[in-house]
This record gives sequence, C-alpha cells and structure tokens, in this order.
Amino acid sequence: MNLDQYIRDIPDFPKPGILFKDIMPLLADPKAFRHSIKLLAEIYKTRKIDAIAAAEARGFLFAAPLALELEKPLVPLRKPGKLPYRTYSLKYELEYGSAELQMHTDGIQIHDRVLLIDDVLATGGTMKAGASLIEQAGGVVDSCAFLIELTFLQGRQKLQGYEVFSLLKY
Amino acid sequence: MNLDQYIRDIPDFPKPGILFKDIMPLLADPKAFRHSIKLLAEIYKTRKIDAIAAAEARGFLFAAPLALELEKPLVPLRKPGKLPYRTYSLKYELEYGSAELQMHTDGIQIHDRVLLIDDVLATGGTMKAGASLIEQAGGVVDSCAFLIELTFLQGRQKLQGYEVFSLLKY
Repeated sequence: MNLDQYIRDIPDFPKPGILFKDIMPLLADPKAFRHSIKLLAEIYKTRKIDAIAAAEARGFLFAAPLALELEKPLVPLRKPGKLPYRTYSLKYELEYGSAELQMHTDGIQIHDRVLLIDDVLATGGTMKAGASLIEQAGGVVDSCAFLIELTFLQGRQKLQGYEVFSLLKY
Repeated sequence: MNLDQYIRDIPDFPKPGILFKDIMPLLADPKAFRHSIKLLAEIYKTRKIDAIAAAEARGFLFAAPLALELEKPLVPLRKPGKLPYRTYSLKYELEYGSAELQMHTDGIQIHDRVLLIDDVLATGGTMKAGASLIEQAGGVVDSCAFLIELTFLQGRQKLQGYEVFSLLKY
C-alpha cells in the first residue's frame, strides 16, 4: 500500500508559498490509517521501549493507536495549563514567537526509553522540545518517528544526536 | 476491569473548588486503555455508523483507536486555523468567553451517521458544537460517547435530542 496517495497537498497553507501536507485523507481511510500504524509498530516492536510520548494535537492521532499496538504507556505532551498534575515544562523558539510544552512529572520513570511520535517533521522544534522534556524527566530518547518528513526544512539537523525515522519523505 | 481506578482526582484544577478527573493513569496502562476502547467498540460495532468524529486534543486519544477498531473514517474537529482545507465552522459559548470548532467540508458525506467521541462530558458545550457541525455538513449524529461523565454538570441536558453514553459516571 502506497501511503503517499492518502496525503493531500494544500497550496498556500498556512501562508502563501507553503505547500501543506494534509493527513486527513489518511485518517479517513481506516485501511491506510491502520497500515501506517502497523508499519511503525513493525519497526519498534523489537526495540526496548518503555513508553511512547507525543505532543498535542495531531501527534495523539498516531501515538494512541501505536501505544495500544505496542502495549506501551502513552505520555501526552501538552501546551501550558492543560495538564492537571505537577509538570516539567520547556519553552522553545518557533519561526515566529515561542511555544511551551509540558509533561507530567510522573509521565515516565527515570531511565525509561521513550519513543517520540509526531505526524510531521517540519523544522523539528516541537520534537526537540519533547525530547528535552523526556531527558529533563530522567528518560532516554530511543527514537523520534514521524509519518511525514519535510526534508527541505532540515528538521533532522535540529534533532542531531537522536535516531530519526519517517514513513514518507517529501 | 474497573476503569475507575485508572482515573485520578486532582483537586483545585483548573481552578479552586474544581475536582479534575485526570485520565493520564489510564493512558499509562495499555491494558486499561485497551479495555476502554474495547468497551466502546462493543457498544457501537453493531450500529450503522459511517464515521467517527472528535474534537482536539484529548478526544483524539480515544477516537483514533476506536476508529481503527471499528474500521471507520476518523474526522478531526479542530480549533480555527488548524485545518488546511475548506471548513465548516461553528462558534459557541463557554462558561467564560467563546470558542470555535471547525471541520473539513469533505470530512463526512451527506446522510453519514456519525459517532462523536470525547474523553469527558462536562457542560457539553464542545460536544454540542461538534454535533451541530456534523449536521451543518448534512450528517446525522448517531450518538455522543464519553469515557467520563461529570453528571453534576448536567451536560446531558445540553445534548438533549442526542443519544449519550458514558463509560464512567461521577
């Protein structure tokens, strides 16, 4: 199954000149969606992974089924003010302005090996922040996995030192 | 399996006097998380449902595995500016201020029967907005399903006319 056919190009979103990769057609096709989760599960099922973490919101769409498939705890990384318990927090820079990501302090155990998931690797800022949060909590980043990698944005450079995998490259 | 033991009470969140129901312990236990999805799937697998819709972000955590389990299209409902294609949009009132929810115009087909999912039924405002979006797109709301219902907030009243189901009631 060629997953590429379930990714829709949307020109000029979120701003003129940007070609956005829309994953909605994939989510609308249960066989394709299932296939993307199976492919990720195949890769990571033989590794020693203790937890799967993902940033809201689209990261949840892939992390939840994958966590169930691999039978691992799911650790949501959220924007400030969303997590009710004690949190680790990390501010990071975006192209314009800044953002912040939080994780519950009991989200992982010390030395846990964590697989981080997101739908798209763009500049890598959010994933880098997620990886730093895992380390702040005493965990180890096993890998960073994506459905889609926008290679021209060179997100891998920002994630240097981490193992990075993507199902689809553009 | 008693799912209640995987829900953690957090007092005074998001503000003093509120007892928040935290689903993170459930997500951290793959067997409990899987069980919650199986219970929902058992209820809805015999109904004629064409699509599953959920609002970001926590709704995605349950809607994605359930859509895969039931082999139905998943339709994300998102905050303004997040969906790249043409959208239907609906503004609604919250306790303080207002919010807006959007759906792709090709998210469902006319006459599709849609199951709406969220983690918590509180006042019902977001779910009501989601149901209205489905109807705006020509769909039919089959049911609204929740992991948790906070009965004292009387969200069911706001969802009058819709079939409402929750796995856990508080």
